[in-house]
Amino acid sequence: MLFHVHMNVHIPVDMDPDALADTVARERAYSQELQRSGTWVHIWRIVGEYANFSIFDVASNDELHGILSNLPLFPYMDITVTPLATHPSDVTAG
Amino acid sequence: MLFHVHMNVHIPVDMDPDALADTVARERAYSQELQRSGTWVHIWRIVGEYANFSIFDVASNDELHGILSNLPLFPYMDITVTPLATHPSDVTAG
Amino acid sequence: MLFHVHMNVHIPVDMDPDALADTVARERAYSQELQRSGTWVHIWRIVGEYANFSIFDVASNDELHGILSNLPLFPYMDITVTPLATHPSDVTAG
Amino acid sequence: MLFHVHMNVHIPVDMDPDALADTVARERAYSQELQRSGTWVHIWRIVGEYANFSIFDVASNDELHGILSNLPLFPYMDITVTPLATHPSDVTAG
Amino acid sequence: MLFHVHMNVHIPVDMDPDALADTVARERAYSQELQRSGTWVHIWRIVGEYANFSIFDVASNDELHGILSNLPLFPYMDITVTPLATHPSDVTAG
Amino acid sequence: MLFHVHMNVHIPVDMDPDALADTVARERAYSQELQRSGTWVHIWRIVGEYANFSIFDVASNDELHGILSNLPLFPYMDITVTPLATHPSDVTAG
Amino acid sequence: MLFHVHMNVHIPVDMDPDALADTVARERAYSQELQRSGTWVHIWRIVGEYANFSIFDVASNDELHGILSNLPLFPYMDITVTPLATHPSDVTAG
Amino acid sequence: MLFHVHMNVHIPVDMDPDALADTVARERAYSQELQRSGTWVHIWRIVGEYANFSIFDVASNDELHGILSNLPLFPYMDITVTPLATHPSDVTAG
Amino acid sequence: MLFHVHMNVHIPVDMDPDALADTVARERAYSQELQRSGTWVHIWRIVGEYANFSIFDVASNDELHGILSNLPLFPYMDITVTPLATHPSDVTAG
Amino acid sequence: MLFHVHMNVHIPVDMDPDALADTVARERAYSQELQRSGTWVHIWRIVGEYANFSIFDVASNDELHGILSNLPLFPYMDITVTPLATHPSDVTAG
Repeated sequence: MLFHVHMNVHIPVDMDPDALADTVARERAYSQELQRSGTWVHIWRIVGEYANFSIFDVASNDELHGILSNLPLFPYMDITVTPLATHPSDVTAG
Repeated sequence: MLFHVHMNVHIPVDMDPDALADTVARERAYSQELQRSGTWVHIWRIVGEYANFSIFDVASNDELHGILSNLPLFPYMDITVTPLATHPSDVTAG
Repeated sequence: MLFHVHMNVHIPVDMDPDALADTVARERAYSQELQRSGTWVHIWRIVGEYANFSIFDVASNDELHGILSNLPLFPYMDITVTPLATHPSDVTAG
Repeated sequence: MLFHVHMNVHIPVDMDPDALADTVARERAYSQELQRSGTWVHIWRIVGEYANFSIFDVASNDELHGILSNLPLFPYMDITVTPLATHPSDVTAG
Repeated sequence: MLFHVHMNVHIPVDMDPDALADTVARERAYSQELQRSGTWVHIWRIVGEYANFSIFDVASNDELHGILSNLPLFPYMDITVTPLATHPSDVTAG
Repeated sequence: MLFHVHMNVHIPVDMDPDALADTVARERAYSQELQRSGTWVHIWRIVGEYANFSIFDVASNDELHGILSNLPLFPYMDITVTPLATHPSDVTAG
Repeated sequence: MLFHVHMNVHIPVDMDPDALADTVARERAYSQELQRSGTWVHIWRIVGEYANFSIFDVASNDELHGILSNLPLFPYMDITVTPLATHPSDVTAG
Repeated sequence: MLFHVHMNVHIPVDMDPDALADTVARERAYSQELQRSGTWVHIWRIVGEYANFSIFDVASNDELHGILSNLPLFPYMDITVTPLATHPSDVTAG
Repeated sequence: MLFHVHMNVHIPVDMDPDALADTVARERAYSQELQRSGTWVHIWRIVGEYANFSIFDVASNDELHGILSNLPLFPYMDITVTPLATHPSDVTAG
Repeated sequence: MLFHVHMNVHIPVDMDPDALADTVARERAYSQELQRSGTWVHIWRIVGEYANFSIFDVASNDELHGILSNLPLFPYMDITVTPLATHPSDVTAG
């Protein structure tokens, strides 16, 4: 089941650079593990912004909330989740 | 080069049903041809809305505008285009 | 799996009264059948508005979109869907 | 008498972790006591957000304001209250 | 129990003048009856707009919705209802 | 001459509790003096918010600005003022 | 007593040209009479829009609402009124 | 003196095709004459929208309003004008 | 050439009172000098807000930006500039 | 390929003046190098704001994101990117 997720990151301008680098590194590892397992299907950077559009494939709303609320950058993010359905014109749909 | 496109369709409630059915059928054929050629990479229905999120892979802004402005449903749509870049955490990026 | 749905109805002021009454009657029957089957878990009128907050319990995003897009009043509605997860303080959660 | 309440929590990123944990624990106890007494009828987490939709059953506006303004997390919340009425299609209505 | 109600009226510019005059006259009679019975406590015109702020004193949300949805101008109105509580500085509060 | 005033209070979460208590006490005394003199005609708490709707009866715009800008909580408030006129349906109007 | 008024005009694209010309001519005469009497102190066109910013000098809110609601273009306008006070830096203030 | 202008075109879906084609042709001729005279310095299509960003070089606000309000498509446009100044980093500034 | 300027001032609640008083005093002197020279034509306080509507008469966009960006309170302001043209109904226009 | 970029700068009022001056100097050098190479085609100051509208000519979305995210002032900016296409009325288009 697919969900569209818009993540918008707001880093305080006075955040400690080491703490920031560490958080970003953990975010990256966390994201890549979920990408490799097929849960985080797509991630695209929005040009000019510290933000991304992502697609997740999960079994339930609870699974998705568990994943998102454990993002290392979660306390610095505004997240908007949109549930997706199969489009009737989608050529890849069964 | 990828672009995120949000299409929101507003059909007048008194539109002639045959004209609507014809326009929707042409929209579908148009979309599927572009999907098969690899230009319209993804299309997802937004749950509960007559709207979709799509991803296009085009060579230029002009190519994308040509495609979108020729959509049979274009006169009934509000469209928002967001340019996408490679995300530094994307495991599929070269 | 639960979803919060906000339905906002916009009836054209010059809509034929018989057509409106018929559509509202079909909407009611459709809603009540889904309520009795346990899919449409709650429906509340928003005071002062032709609008409601509803809770749906469905197996998938596709099931929810199928239900909502077949509402007899769908062409007259603005709908916003919000996926829900179990709240950690919920005393009814397992 | 039912009310729909949207609670949106904004924790400062530099809040002392012990103070935060203590406040969250008191919030949970406070919420669960009201859930068990039948006043706080439903609480759902909004997926991807530190936010919830809740339903309260109270005797008056004053009772509801008393409850909400005493939430341990109240100073960190944006709250929107919407009064609910019985929906004419509700199969559970008398 | 008091509620603050914002009523914003949108009359189609091509509405039949007799139908409009009749609806406005019925709205006035309806409002004045509720004012005299003590339910519609205050009504003020917003300067420069076809809109008003009103205060209602009702026993329940259901009573308020019944009153508002039966306004003769209801199909032409956008209504926003805000529940009110006693202010701790109010010198008239018991 | 009546004015509708929406006051929305934003207290910094780290404000000194004694300073806050002192400011709130002065605000209360200031408000009650104006209520007793007939200038601050109504004050209602908005349920779930640190905010109020108030009605002022003043002789001029300058008098109203003088009152509002001297509120002890003024530096912490967002204020919106709406001028009110007599409503043609008001049964209490001369 | 001064008020700032923003008038935004929305003419239906299919309005009868003679009716429009007549309404605009009456609006102009009405405005100029009020300008000459010193009530409508300033009127400026907003560049690129069918809209204006105006300043009115009236004795009361009721007088201002009477003037605005009788504008020949009133049914086609969105109007926003902002009460003005003397600025402490104004060199022309007594 | 430069101005940034955002033009957003809203054509009624039931507009007569010949009238539309004629209006668009006159708009084009009007625009190109102003481009050739150096007044309409730039015009860019916004991808996916019936809208443009333009830059005008005019001697005064009045000249700009005269130009914009005489656009053949003016009755169908929402226009937003932003005055521009020389940027201190502009390498082309004297 | 006239411009409408909306200045909205946001003073940090913990700003040093002496620094604030000094900045406000310099702002006042700066404003009054421009008022006396005929550049800052009008300044009105918005009732209930730390904000003003002003009218400037300048020779160019660059002159206006130079004036506004040198306001002592500029770092604490949100400013919106709207270019004004002569209104066709203005009785004072040549 | 052209892009329209809106940059809005938010400098903390308590930022160290030397750090600010250094960042602004580096921003200027960075911008001017890109202007001279033909990538940053236009930059205009928005009158009354610490903001600019710019036009970039780049080969790809990735190139544009690389440029923008390396702006010395990037952590202090809100940036909105709009892709541009050739306008059919553009007299300079081939």
